[in-house]
Amino acid sequence: MSTLDTSSTGLQALLSPGTARSAVLPVVRQRVSALEPTLARICCYHLGFTDERGDPAGAGSGKLTRAALMTTAAEGVGLRPEDVRTQAAALELLHNSTLVHDDIIDADELRRGRPAAWKVFGASLAILAGDALQALSLQMVVDDPGPGRAEVSSAFAEALRLVLSGQSREFTVRLGSGADIAAYDRIVEEKTSALLVCALVTPALRAGRPERVLAALRGAGRHLGLAFQILNDVEDIWGDPAVTGKPVRGDIRRRNPSFPVLAALAADSPVGERLRGLWHGDGTAAAHLQEMADLVEESGGRHTAERVSRGHLDSALEHLGRAELAPAASAELAVQFDRIVNRTT
Amino acid sequence: MSTLDTSSTGLQALLSPGTARSAVLPVVRQRVSALEPTLARICCYHLGFTDERGDPAGAGSGKLTRAALMTTAAEGVGLRPEDVRTQAAALELLHNSTLVHDDIIDADELRRGRPAAWKVFGASLAILAGDALQALSLQMVVDDPGPGRAEVSSAFAEALRLVLSGQSREFTVRLGSGADIAAYDRIVEEKTSALLVCALVTPALRAGRPERVLAALRGAGRHLGLAFQILNDVEDIWGDPAVTGKPVRGDIRRRNPSFPVLAALAADSPVGERLRGLWHGDGTAAAHLQEMADLVEESGGRHTAERVSRGHLDSALEHLGRAELAPAASAELAVQFDRIVNRTT
Repeated sequence: MSTLDTSSTGLQALLSPGTARSAVLPVVRQRVSALEPTLARICCYHLGFTDERGDPAGAGSGKLTRAALMTTAAEGVGLRPEDVRTQAAALELLHNSTLVHDDIIDADELRRGRPAAWKVFGASLAILAGDALQALSLQMVVDDPGPGRAEVSSAFAEALRLVLSGQSREFTVRLGSGADIAAYDRIVEEKTSALLVCALVTPALRAGRPERVLAALRGAGRHLGLAFQILNDVEDIWGDPAVTGKPVRGDIRRRNPSFPVLAALAADSPVGERLRGLWHGDGTAAAHLQEMADLVEESGGRHTAERVSRGHLDSALEHLGRAELAPAASAELAVQFDRIVNRTT
Repeated sequence: MSTLDTSSTGLQALLSPGTARSAVLPVVRQRVSALEPTLARICCYHLGFTDERGDPAGAGSGKLTRAALMTTAAEGVGLRPEDVRTQAAALELLHNSTLVHDDIIDADELRRGRPAAWKVFGASLAILAGDALQALSLQMVVDDPGPGRAEVSSAFAEALRLVLSGQSREFTVRLGSGADIAAYDRIVEEKTSALLVCALVTPALRAGRPERVLAALRGAGRHLGLAFQILNDVEDIWGDPAVTGKPVRGDIRRRNPSFPVLAALAADSPVGERLRGLWHGDGTAAAHLQEMADLVEESGGRHTAERVSRGHLDSALEHLGRAELAPAASAELAVQFDRIVNRTT
């Protein structure tokens, strides 16, 4: 069991925004740049290090949400940020591997305001690039010799399995006859919560913390994922595309399982009836999407979603409080949870 | 260091064909069937356990070449086949993950005489299914608690990295200005040899064998891959599609790096000149392909390929002889090497 290190140096560094970026991004960049040249070029483009021609484009995109959680959780169990730097970088790579493939799967042409990797390099090479990120991520944790190596490797492999399972469930629901809230929760626990759980438990595994701590962190990550995803679904319908970076109402257009819609579809009312008719039809014109959005709001779907998301955030914080972390790190994680859910970062 | 176990029971079982299949296939089947239902269905289809509707189709397809090598190599270092059963199953899953994605990347519509997974289930779900096989494979080795767990996990992650690197190099060469034999060798060492090396070294890693044994096994796998791939390229041009299971001359049609062609392209003769003109043109009609095949043969490309392949097989056997394996297992591996290269299984 490691001793707690709540030295102000470590935590001050953490509490300043951008610490995870400055600690983890160089590792991400160095490892990705060492891939086979074509794969390196695609991955560096996807990660925002380079532009479509391979020229330097900036410091890299993405908020490194998962790396920041892992780095702060490390402080919480008495480790230094550098003790989980490799794992934090690997988790960001794992997350990005799923994004590269996701954009192909969903035929999404934009990612972080730029053409998606498959639009620039073709789907074939983008499939290989996503595979390469996935393989590199697992190789990094498998090869890192620190304590808890086997347990952390298992946690990463399990997280990836769950994400893929959730993506497949979501895709199947989209093709099929719809989902209920229970199916939705399961999808989100797999595709969204799994990587957040991995971020939170990895430092505890390295520090050899007992099962009750791991269970609390798993619960925190699970509810955090649900709180985030449900509010994300709300933003997909009523948010500002300039803020979300995505075309509005993509979930309704694709008949993706979306919490506000599922809540409204269950309503036993004429409004719910009308919504069910439209949802199970194939209309995707802007007027159709607008009408469905209005019906969801009228049925109380938006209100329910916002309420349930808040409930999950409360539960996440409750679990966090039981994880026996150093108080300052725990407080910083609480702030991060709130920012993740309310997208204020 | 484990003691050698050359008991006749173990080796007799090995020497009878189909042992790897009967030992490893149930593990493959059980693990794949436990995936999320849609992913399980696609993977079971790809592996030949089920048909397109999900009904039972047979005992599974594929020769399990890599599992057979690993199982025999295990006997060679004094382990029992069951000591590497999980790893052998995982290696077959890793190999199959690359096949599922490969068929999408190359738009190959047939795999083992049946429609490829992406033709049946769509590219989106096939991408996820390939990802799931890759993740499952690594999860199996990472979670298996036996000796050499970390080393074997590293070997698997490295093998996957190399395969993806080789596939990307091959794809890039195909799009670009051609390759020479040195580039070809590197591609094959990565995309073909890496999994064969993994098959041969995994048991030695579990048995704690010294570096000189690992180096000999790596050399054997490297040359085995080259010997196999070069003769495979010959068969692609002059083989019987009924035997190869693929449309004839796919490599020439796609301007894939192919050893006999590369050898012939280097010929400083009018025949070589004519071939270079056709190869760098875009003709894919049957008559074009036939003329190129004839020119390759006339330039001596086929003869050179067959000679070089034999040389690599000899080198593979030479390295095998230095791996200090139990003689009976070593002899059985020699037979397997020959069968792999000459496709007589």
